[in-house]
Amino acid sequence: MADYSYEVDLDVRLRDIDFMGHVNNATYATYLEQAREAYFRDVLGVSLVEVGTVLVNLEIDYVRPIEADDDVTVGVDPAELGTSSLPLEYEIRADGKRAATARTVQVVRDEETGTSRSLPSEWRERIDRHRD
Amino acid sequence: MADYSYEVDLDVRLRDIDFMGHVNNATYATYLEQAREAYFRDVLGVSLVEVGTVLVNLEIDYVRPIEADDDVTVGVDPAELGTSSLPLEYEIRADGKRAATARTVQVVRDEETGTSRSLPSEWRERIDRHRD
Amino acid sequence: MADYSYEVDLDVRLRDIDFMGHVNNATYATYLEQAREAYFRDVLGVSLVEVGTVLVNLEIDYVRPIEADDDVTVGVDPAELGTSSLPLEYEIRADGKRAATARTVQVVRDEETGTSRSLPSEWRERIDRHRD
Amino acid sequence: MADYSYEVDLDVRLRDIDFMGHVNNATYATYLEQAREAYFRDVLGVSLVEVGTVLVNLEIDYVRPIEADDDVTVGVDPAELGTSSLPLEYEIRADGKRAATARTVQVVRDEETGTSRSLPSEWRERIDRHRD
Repeated sequence: MADYSYEVDLDVRLRDIDFMGHVNNATYATYLEQAREAYFRDVLGVSLVEVGTVLVNLEIDYVRPIEADDDVTVGVDPAELGTSSLPLEYEIRADGKRAATARTVQVVRDEETGTSRSLPSEWRERIDRHRD
Repeated sequence: MADYSYEVDLDVRLRDIDFMGHVNNATYATYLEQAREAYFRDVLGVSLVEVGTVLVNLEIDYVRPIEADDDVTVGVDPAELGTSSLPLEYEIRADGKRAATARTVQVVRDEETGTSRSLPSEWRERIDRHRD
Repeated sequence: MADYSYEVDLDVRLRDIDFMGHVNNATYATYLEQAREAYFRDVLGVSLVEVGTVLVNLEIDYVRPIEADDDVTVGVDPAELGTSSLPLEYEIRADGKRAATARTVQVVRDEETGTSRSLPSEWRERIDRHRD
Repeated sequence: MADYSYEVDLDVRLRDIDFMGHVNNATYATYLEQAREAYFRDVLGVSLVEVGTVLVNLEIDYVRPIEADDDVTVGVDPAELGTSSLPLEYEIRADGKRAATARTVQVVRDEETGTSRSLPSEWRERIDRHRD
């Protein structure tokens, strides 16, 4: 299994289970959001709630179902940064086995003009430092 | 805006709105599931709850935010069918404007063996008939 | 079945179904929120999103499970208004049969001071007019 | 603050936050379900997923809003047991302060006949033993 530079443990809730008896497919996107929030707080030093990023793309490959009593860990790694876009790659593990891989792209927006703006240089530095 | 062979109207719930003040990114996946359920019922004549399909891939491109009072419609179209996989393409519209495009791939599984099996021929016929 | 002065139809989502195969107990509270939003819009002429009310109490009696393909209607009726509190009574019906009864109490808050304030007199008038 | 014989820590998810900027009122019911699951597992030694209980009543008093970065703990205590009903009392705390008190009643059902049946005597013993 690939190494990820950042990992976070998540709790599966009973409410995450759907009519199929497994964690619902949309809930994987919630797990990714949760992992993103932790990554932003711990690596970038900012709150996802306060910073103005917009999710522009999400892709998930579902590998195996997640059960209610599984221990879930999400690995997070930044891919190649764009001028204003922050691509992240993820692996969701259930009881240590790969349950999904995923990728998101976020863009930093200027709240006032609504146009995209450059990634803060401090983010680039923090991401580089954390990777090493 | 592209034409879709199947369309369904969905209700936005207040609970779909998140900390950003718009419909949450994971809820788009729930909208797609809702549209899939309607497509299965109306076009394939089966219940998504009863039929044994597994979602293996999901991709969403977010174009514009969806607000609490928007009227949401989802267009659904099958892409090229595989032996055992049913790829669907979607467009989520909010008040008539494209809010997202998306694509999912489902695979038909044999419940007992857990291996994938061929798409029922009746599904192929119904999809062809509906497309015309 | 009791008559309610206001009624609204809701769509059950596949995602509302939980590990038990029925609509999850917490989702009933979401249905009530949805019914409240509709009541505020249609009867009080204001948006629940914009008006500063706080939910202080919620009680639900579960009568029968709601299935994925049930048609759900929620009846809403105001109970006796307090100085600053708006109590609402509900009946959730699934395919015409009572699935739950419920009651909520909302309080109107002054955004700046955080203290409760009197119900707007226009609300009282609109509620009285609608009841007749 | 009252003592509770059982306590469990829960993680607030970003997705729990609603259009008001706080944890949504229906999500409190999900927190209670999560606490119930933990209580059943740790005190009764059974899985809430496998055991046939039905929730018949839920009541929540909301005391203060829960924020995204609050640490949430739920205290659980059984109230007086009925023949076939298990009433539980809860306190939801956010950063150590009471955010809500709540009460649920569950009934044990016979899966085949659909009628209520007596609480297993082992549950009574385990509850008594845990209380001491």
